[in-house]
Amino acid sequence: MAKKPKMLDELVHEGLQDIYFAEKKILVALPKMAKATEAEELADAFREHEEQTREQVSRLEKVFKLIDEKPKAKKCPAIIGIIEEGEDIIDEYEDSPALDAGLLGAAQAVEHYEIARYGTLKAWARELGLNEAVSLLQATLQEEEDTDEKLSKLAVAPINQKAEAAE
Amino acid sequence: MAKKPKMLDELVHEGLQDIYFAEKKILVALPKMAKATEAEELADAFREHEEQTREQVSRLEKVFKLIDEKPKAKKCPAIIGIIEEGEDIIDEYEDSPALDAGLLGAAQAVEHYEIARYGTLKAWARELGLNEAVSLLQATLQEEEDTDEKLSKLAVAPINQKAEAAE
Repeated sequence: MAKKPKMLDELVHEGLQDIYFAEKKILVALPKMAKATEAEELADAFREHEEQTREQVSRLEKVFKLIDEKPKAKKCPAIIGIIEEGEDIIDEYEDSPALDAGLLGAAQAVEHYEIARYGTLKAWARELGLNEAVSLLQATLQEEEDTDEKLSKLAVAPINQKAEAAE
Repeated sequence: MAKKPKMLDELVHEGLQDIYFAEKKILVALPKMAKATEAEELADAFREHEEQTREQVSRLEKVFKLIDEKPKAKKCPAIIGIIEEGEDIIDEYEDSPALDAGLLGAAQAVEHYEIARYGTLKAWARELGLNEAVSLLQATLQEEEDTDEKLSKLAVAPINQKAEAAE
């Protein structure tokens, strides 16, 4: 039996479910990452991003409403894999000088996943003329890009140096 | 028993093994993506990136050599999840107008994973004074960023419009 052809609105709906799942997983991962580090500025960055993530979840719920759908999470193997790699860092680098550098790398992988997905969702929403959704998705995309940049700045100097110098 | 403290050079070594695994998976995925699309410019982009990826694998082998290690792949759950989502798009959107938009989104998620990992590896290599490795990693990072930008340009206009307009 031929499948029903799928259109862009379906990609948007499924993409929203994917990133909604991802954000909820990230909300669970961030406090663990904040707890794992002893670097105060890194713990602060993770906690601040946890707050932002709550707001991002609420923005996604608004976008679901704009397309007349109920907020629903769809299993996202990508974020499961990315977070699993972060958990491995916590396990394997516990009490090691390179822990914080590893945590930063793990967090930036999460950010880039979100940047990719929100960028795509925004392009699709624009194509469909969903202007309010575009604004909401853009607000989150900007936060993810800012967070990634902030983490890049933390990654230079003290944290990576500590990982190298303590031999 | 206390674990041996892990340093930045270990993060570099493990990070290389992770992205080496990822590049090899991507080499298998790209021809499938090129075959799945009927959009010639998209198939060309995937084929061109396949060629680039071969060169990137060879650069990684050079970096392994620079740190006196044998090239070895370490299972990377993140790329497995990201590619799995791309395969779902191929299965679920086959013959649908939104297939190409979905493939583009999947490819950009792959690119962003690589951008995150190469960015981190480059920062770590620089911290360790591995200048030749920094140049090799930077060359690949630039290609990934260029590819992501190219895909973003393909994502506007014809491909996303086709996904919307064919109702």
